[in-house]
Amino acid sequence: MNIPKAVVTAAAPKQRTLALQTVIDRDGHEKSVLRTIIEEIRRANIDHIAVVISPGDEAAYTRSVADRTVQFIHQVEASGYANALYSARSFLRGEAFLHLVGDHLYVGTNGTHSSKTLVEVASQEGCSISAVQSTRETQLKRYGAIGGQRLPGKQDLYKVERVLEKPTPTEAEQSLNVSGLRAGHYLCFFGMHVLTPTFMELLEQHSNGQKGATVSGVLAELANREQYLALELQSRRYDVGVKYGLFQAQLALALSGQDRDLVLTQLLENLALQRNEKSANETD
Amino acid sequence: MNIPKAVVTAAAPKQRTLALQTVIDRDGHEKSVLRTIIEEIRRANIDHIAVVISPGDEAAYTRSVADRTVQFIHQVEASGYANALYSARSFLRGEAFLHLVGDHLYVGTNGTHSSKTLVEVASQEGCSISAVQSTRETQLKRYGAIGGQRLPGKQDLYKVERVLEKPTPTEAEQSLNVSGLRAGHYLCFFGMHVLTPTFMELLEQHSNGQKGATVSGVLAELANREQYLALELQSRRYDVGVKYGLFQAQLALALSGQDRDLVLTQLLENLALQRNEKSANETD
Repeated sequence: MNIPKAVVTAAAPKQRTLALQTVIDRDGHEKSVLRTIIEEIRRANIDHIAVVISPGDEAAYTRSVADRTVQFIHQVEASGYANALYSARSFLRGEAFLHLVGDHLYVGTNGTHSSKTLVEVASQEGCSISAVQSTRETQLKRYGAIGGQRLPGKQDLYKVERVLEKPTPTEAEQSLNVSGLRAGHYLCFFGMHVLTPTFMELLEQHSNGQKGATVSGVLAELANREQYLALELQSRRYDVGVKYGLFQAQLALALSGQDRDLVLTQLLENLALQRNEKSANETD
Repeated sequence: MNIPKAVVTAAAPKQRTLALQTVIDRDGHEKSVLRTIIEEIRRANIDHIAVVISPGDEAAYTRSVADRTVQFIHQVEASGYANALYSARSFLRGEAFLHLVGDHLYVGTNGTHSSKTLVEVASQEGCSISAVQSTRETQLKRYGAIGGQRLPGKQDLYKVERVLEKPTPTEAEQSLNVSGLRAGHYLCFFGMHVLTPTFMELLEQHSNGQKGATVSGVLAELANREQYLALELQSRRYDVGVKYGLFQAQLALALSGQDRDLVLTQLLENLALQRNEKSANETD
């Protein structure tokens, strides 16, 4: 299967300045969150990239990406995630695509790159595939989660049978148990999917992508229509939209990158200063 | 002396997205860097605030400040720091003002607020006064620095006699030694000043505030014209324009604020994950 295109969604109202936040990547270069996402896509050898944004944000986003080949698609109304993806249908023209959400950052382990791995496996398997991560029950409220069976002979590939958006622990226990995971852990979405044209067809049928359709709902239908897999990744994802998410992502990037020693030293200095001030207060 | 107004400079080309970066303040609230600066000014009971920006940034800055009483002044040409301040002359109308740079964040100790303290001392003394901090010789390349004499009977007040912008260690040793500081330390600017109308008059004379005039140069002239003091503060300043500056500022805010325990726990988890992955790599 050929996966020539990629779509990033970054149009949610609370996301509007998120993609413009600056991080220092593992390579030691300062760039916007959106640019790190674009670079992650390019590592999968995909050159046709579109970002779905709110109208009015194009100038700032264009500056922050600094890559003229990236297209911007306006989501005219703030009608949710499914509608944002649906806005990309003319860009996609019925082709399979890689989809990344605009508010996650990834820190790979052992030099692997999540999007590259996902696209390679999707090309081999010839079907839709979502990256997932074994996630603690307490975090279920933040993610979509899947239930299914491990493919015979494959350690990290699962056939998806059920998809639930932000399930409660009870719902998850009833239908999303996957054998082989640690107790109280479920396979939650990683913010990275390869989707076949069938996904977009279902999204179109599903109330024309208007309010009401959810990405998880359409993925659940997809699992009934054709083979749909999940790939468990060991890389770490950081939701930079939550409190301290960007800070933790920055810490992880710095500690696994070339500035590791510099940042560790600064951390210790900062902690020592705090301690000194605290003791000074106490003796005052 | 009455100090009714404040001017923030945030128009430097490399600063354009800086003031829009999000930090979580000690109160646990997410806000833009620029908003934390505005709040710092309000703590000094100053309500007339103007921010000097590059033309074209007003929409994004307005959103990021979320305070309709803040005025924006356009610096028409990117002609440097002195010219940016000069752009505020009609807003100031010959009054004394508090000036903060738009790329520093402050973390006070013992519940003190730097701008409030500085404005109080300036009102009492009735003259221009710059906040300074005892700074290591190795950091001189990043700041303006002063030389002068400690005022009799005042522990943290100095009469400014000389001002040099980013002096070399040799220049500093020759003319900026201040008795009572630790060896190899100098009084460097903190990014926060109270300035009398004379400052703006000198800036006007000095090539009409065009290229060539520097803020440090005008401050040096000011020291020859009228009493000009420096107040040594114990709070910490973070230059968020340098690499990892924002990260360190965020760390300092979090560790001295209400989210201290949460962030320390996340830090340790993140460090532990790094360690586990490293050992996993080594045994692979």
